[in-house]
Amino acid sequence: MGIRIFITGGTFDKEYNELNGQLYFKDTHMSDLLEMGRNRIDVEIRTLMMIDSLEMTNEDRELIAHQCIQCEENQIIITHGTDTMSLTAKWLAEKVKNKTVVLTGAMIPIKFGSSDGLFNLGSALAFAQTLPPGVYVAMNGRYFHWDNVRKNRQTGVFEETK
Amino acid sequence: MGIRIFITGGTFDKEYNELNGQLYFKDTHMSDLLEMGRNRIDVEIRTLMMIDSLEMTNEDRELIAHQCIQCEENQIIITHGTDTMSLTAKWLAEKVKNKTVVLTGAMIPIKFGSSDGLFNLGSALAFAQTLPPGVYVAMNGRYFHWDNVRKNRQTGVFEETK
Amino acid sequence: MGIRIFITGGTFDKEYNELNGQLYFKDTHMSDLLEMGRNRIDVEIRTLMMIDSLEMTNEDRELIAHQCIQCEENQIIITHGTDTMSLTAKWLAEKVKNKTVVLTGAMIPIKFGSSDGLFNLGSALAFAQTLPPGVYVAMNGRYFHWDNVRKNRQTGVFEETK
Amino acid sequence: MGIRIFITGGTFDKEYNELNGQLYFKDTHMSDLLEMGRNRIDVEIRTLMMIDSLEMTNEDRELIAHQCIQCEENQIIITHGTDTMSLTAKWLAEKVKNKTVVLTGAMIPIKFGSSDGLFNLGSALAFAQTLPPGVYVAMNGRYFHWDNVRKNRQTGVFEETK
Repeated sequence: MGIRIFITGGTFDKEYNELNGQLYFKDTHMSDLLEMGRNRIDVEIRTLMMIDSLEMTNEDRELIAHQCIQCEENQIIITHGTDTMSLTAKWLAEKVKNKTVVLTGAMIPIKFGSSDGLFNLGSALAFAQTLPPGVYVAMNGRYFHWDNVRKNRQTGVFEETK
Repeated sequence: MGIRIFITGGTFDKEYNELNGQLYFKDTHMSDLLEMGRNRIDVEIRTLMMIDSLEMTNEDRELIAHQCIQCEENQIIITHGTDTMSLTAKWLAEKVKNKTVVLTGAMIPIKFGSSDGLFNLGSALAFAQTLPPGVYVAMNGRYFHWDNVRKNRQTGVFEETK
Repeated sequence: MGIRIFITGGTFDKEYNELNGQLYFKDTHMSDLLEMGRNRIDVEIRTLMMIDSLEMTNEDRELIAHQCIQCEENQIIITHGTDTMSLTAKWLAEKVKNKTVVLTGAMIPIKFGSSDGLFNLGSALAFAQTLPPGVYVAMNGRYFHWDNVRKNRQTGVFEETK
Repeated sequence: MGIRIFITGGTFDKEYNELNGQLYFKDTHMSDLLEMGRNRIDVEIRTLMMIDSLEMTNEDRELIAHQCIQCEENQIIITHGTDTMSLTAKWLAEKVKNKTVVLTGAMIPIKFGSSDGLFNLGSALAFAQTLPPGVYVAMNGRYFHWDNVRKNRQTGVFEETK
């Protein structure tokens, strides 16, 4: 069985609207990235929502948890905005058992030249295959347990809380 | 302790010489990639050679093995041309014990627009942190044990031999 | 004598602030673009301001006109936000005589992957060398006289008004 | 009437074959570049050949000249390898009269990250619209008359011969 990939939006998939200068969501770039990485892991991609994580509600998190529980796969990657990624990780840890769930995202949109998204996706896929069941955040080349991670707002870097 | 990264060349680091149209090696792009990925894993980069892996000799492999044994770190990434990556993996498996060694590379040079190098580096860093001691190849989003991997020359994809 | 290049900001030079997700100005990317284009035309670059053209005041336009009149060169390129580019062109046409002034910009920031900025710069440099004295807008591969151009807000494309 | 664009190959359109590490030709990237530049000049693109300019024969040049003479348009751009671009310019100057013919190309393939191709195309389109009938080379942000141009092999830069 392969890896399930859930798309929820975040900087990862933002695009530049050249008519009004705003960032917005269109489609996910997940398939393009997997192709660029020449990925051969069997994956199933599903877009659950396309939102900024600052606007994610608990109803949204409930939906993500439900999808994680329902899906056949035991290895799950979730793309997510970085601002509330650790909050969603905590939420999922209470609901999703016996599965390896890895949340990841990007500081720079994939469509912009110098994104960290492809790097993060490569590491998230690897962590999903090798870490024991649990909920993790994969950013900055590292993985963090759901109960020991926060985004440092000053530096934009993920770090342990303890 | 962090991760040791050994550079040996390969497509990963090739550049285009605009004066003669040939591909060649200058410096490694490893630091740029780690910066783009916003990597915060402590790494130590050392360039051992800058060669096409079809030109790699057993003396070269001996040197790589020696460096793997000598270095302090127990988690090692080696960038390597894809053509003889599995051969070097076998060689290292005989010599390097009790360390996690992950060989990776790229099908497209990093300097060209659509390289798989950043994706592969992300996965290699993650595998190096999570896999038990042994020698592995990380390509195509997957990891392979040294005794069960080859590059399919027709497709350019890595696959199991068994 | 070479070509004078005045920088005023606009989408051309906008960057993505990964800490707050806003677009902002840092330095101009003009030198990098000229290097990428292997430009050998003698140019003198000066940054006059770094602003969104919707925020450009008539005092700003007065400053630009003054600089165009004062500088030694008779061929001038001005990078400018697209929203009020035609307005500034009209303003300059009344003040700057006997010089070839070409305004250009970009619909997508240069720092993002798929910008039109390099293309526009190539055409602006060529138009500055070949058009007779006057004030022009160079966008979409075309040149427009200052008194016959507007940006179509629906399509983002420049077009004649007459 | 618009501009005719003839494709002949050269570094401009080369791609990297990841299976054997060689550069090769597939299709031209002209349409993609014009779209990236948001070009609105009416153009007609035709691929005449896809070859390295060092392999271009006088029969090939005869074919190009014939196509320039035959086509309806009076403004013509030819993409061409840089090594014999000035030689083809001389050949065309003898055969094609009363048309503005602009040869251009690239030092770095368009498919690689840092190509000069988009810049050169922008300038070639502008020169084709503004220069009087004659045969020209457009490279390095400049235009050269067919009888006063050569590529400096040491620097890769085009320069006057006189």
